[in-house]
Amino acid sequence: MGEPVLGVDVGGTNIRAALVDRETGAVRAVEGRALEGRSPAEVVAAASRAIAAVAGRHGGAPFRRIGVGIAGQVLGKSGVVLNAPNLGWRDVPFGAMLGRELGVPVRVVNDLSAAAWGESRFGAARGVSDVLVVFVGTGVGSGIVVGGRLHEGARGVAGELGHVKVRPPRPGEPARPCGCGSSGCLEAYAGGANLAARVRSEVAAGAPTQILDLVGGDVSRITTAHVEEACAAGDGYARRLWDEVGELLATAVANAVTLLNPERLVLGGGVLRGSPTLREIVESRLPAAASPTAAAELTIAAAARGDEAGVVGAALLGSEGEA
Amino acid sequence: MGEPVLGVDVGGTNIRAALVDRETGAVRAVEGRALEGRSPAEVVAAASRAIAAVAGRHGGAPFRRIGVGIAGQVLGKSGVVLNAPNLGWRDVPFGAMLGRELGVPVRVVNDLSAAAWGESRFGAARGVSDVLVVFVGTGVGSGIVVGGRLHEGARGVAGELGHVKVRPPRPGEPARPCGCGSSGCLEAYAGGANLAARVRSEVAAGAPTQILDLVGGDVSRITTAHVEEACAAGDGYARRLWDEVGELLATAVANAVTLLNPERLVLGGGVLRGSPTLREIVESRLPAAASPTAAAELTIAAAARGDEAGVVGAALLGSEGEA
Repeated sequence: MGEPVLGVDVGGTNIRAALVDRETGAVRAVEGRALEGRSPAEVVAAASRAIAAVAGRHGGAPFRRIGVGIAGQVLGKSGVVLNAPNLGWRDVPFGAMLGRELGVPVRVVNDLSAAAWGESRFGAARGVSDVLVVFVGTGVGSGIVVGGRLHEGARGVAGELGHVKVRPPRPGEPARPCGCGSSGCLEAYAGGANLAARVRSEVAAGAPTQILDLVGGDVSRITTAHVEEACAAGDGYARRLWDEVGELLATAVANAVTLLNPERLVLGGGVLRGSPTLREIVESRLPAAASPTAAAELTIAAAARGDEAGVVGAALLGSEGEA
Repeated sequence: MGEPVLGVDVGGTNIRAALVDRETGAVRAVEGRALEGRSPAEVVAAASRAIAAVAGRHGGAPFRRIGVGIAGQVLGKSGVVLNAPNLGWRDVPFGAMLGRELGVPVRVVNDLSAAAWGESRFGAARGVSDVLVVFVGTGVGSGIVVGGRLHEGARGVAGELGHVKVRPPRPGEPARPCGCGSSGCLEAYAGGANLAARVRSEVAAGAPTQILDLVGGDVSRITTAHVEEACAAGDGYARRLWDEVGELLATAVANAVTLLNPERLVLGGGVLRGSPTLREIVESRLPAAASPTAAAELTIAAAARGDEAGVVGAALLGSEGEA
């Protein structure tokens, strides 16, 4: 049994801390709770409480380092969160704040990078050294593993697949705006939050679809799960939407495969997990959209660690550099 | 003065061999000649002669390893050329053939990967560890340097930027076919050979442009240099073409920057070198097309080693693994 390391996953509404076995990636103890407030100080306090709760089960022995995954852009190893739209943060030195509170070094990374590392090390790409892990959930992101190491890039923001441009603006058909401030990004089309908002708006405007029946006429309840349900039941609107989104996802992921030539592609995230029809469209179109030589021996696997991947990856990344 | 290493660059019509200083990247001697035939045996013979000529200037001391860059897809470290359209090759074990002829190990790599490595080590990205090198010449390709090493990918075909898809087929506007057998690839729109063929065809069909005057009415003489010349002189057709191509290049390169977050981007290749207007369009649009955080500290540099980069990179890659 390996030494336990400590990881934290900060989402937009929840926080969780976990003890993770460094040798096996198994979660030995986990503590999750809703965030009561989203200010940096409130999140520091919530993280400290969650960490104290799981650390208590470790017999109280102190941790030498802690890793945090957070839904936002993190500047390299500085621990500064440049932008976390779900929390409303800009330029928050979260690593330093939490480190001061806890008295140990804290490493902060993007949550999807952490999850990609968790999947790569102890999930669907275990033992594989060149990996692309793509998550399609509320947002869209990826992690790139090169030669067995997470590729972080010059500023630590590599892997932003959600912000590759998939739709140039065309006359009469402006590109969809993205939460990042730009438009035409993959996430604007395929991220769960943007997708749900689009469907709500189109259904409210009278789009011919059975989705409205699935939510008892309450447009505000629509999620991507309803699109999947309608699509599986033969709904034309839902099918066209999944075709459009699937095509964009397949092309963007295929382009990353062409560029990186990974050995394995891992597909995960809530939207893909909950939408087998969409996932099938992506998987079936991907090989033809990628360079044949890069696609020839590529294996595609579903993410294996679910919501746990982020906290596992954060713990592992946080413990790097330990003796 | 470092030990000289030997590199070979096999193009579609020419071959060159060079002695390269391993410590400085300087070319000490070079021997270039036209290819008289394109069969694998003829290219082996031409390479052997060129190598013998430059090796003679090294005092006849034998080389322990040789690196070859070739315009084609090369399978990992096998030395097998999967596909070299300009030479008409498929599945040619060129490394083994040349190695048998010369009696030393031969490493074969894609020519643009070799050139990217040459630029990265001893050109426009010297001393930088995370680099993206993009070449727009007859074809389009790139090299990815991660942590100071050339990223080759699982099958050795990483960096195929020319074959990322930039135009999904749309009703009434089919995507342009690419030499790779697919369609909608960046190279189909921005590669010099495809561009020249397109302009010849459009000018022959009566496109309103002064390009026809620049070639004295001989459509077959049109190259991308004439598009640049016409664009600089205010020709509307040429400007629209450069806008279209520049936009596609900027978006594809920006997407690679978003994904990889390199510290430096190097732009090279004959088309960009000979078309400052096009290059300016690409450089001016790139920052807005990339993720702001990935673009924030990116530096863009012109390739510094010109046609020499390929043979320099091939020599360096070939000598890797030497004691």
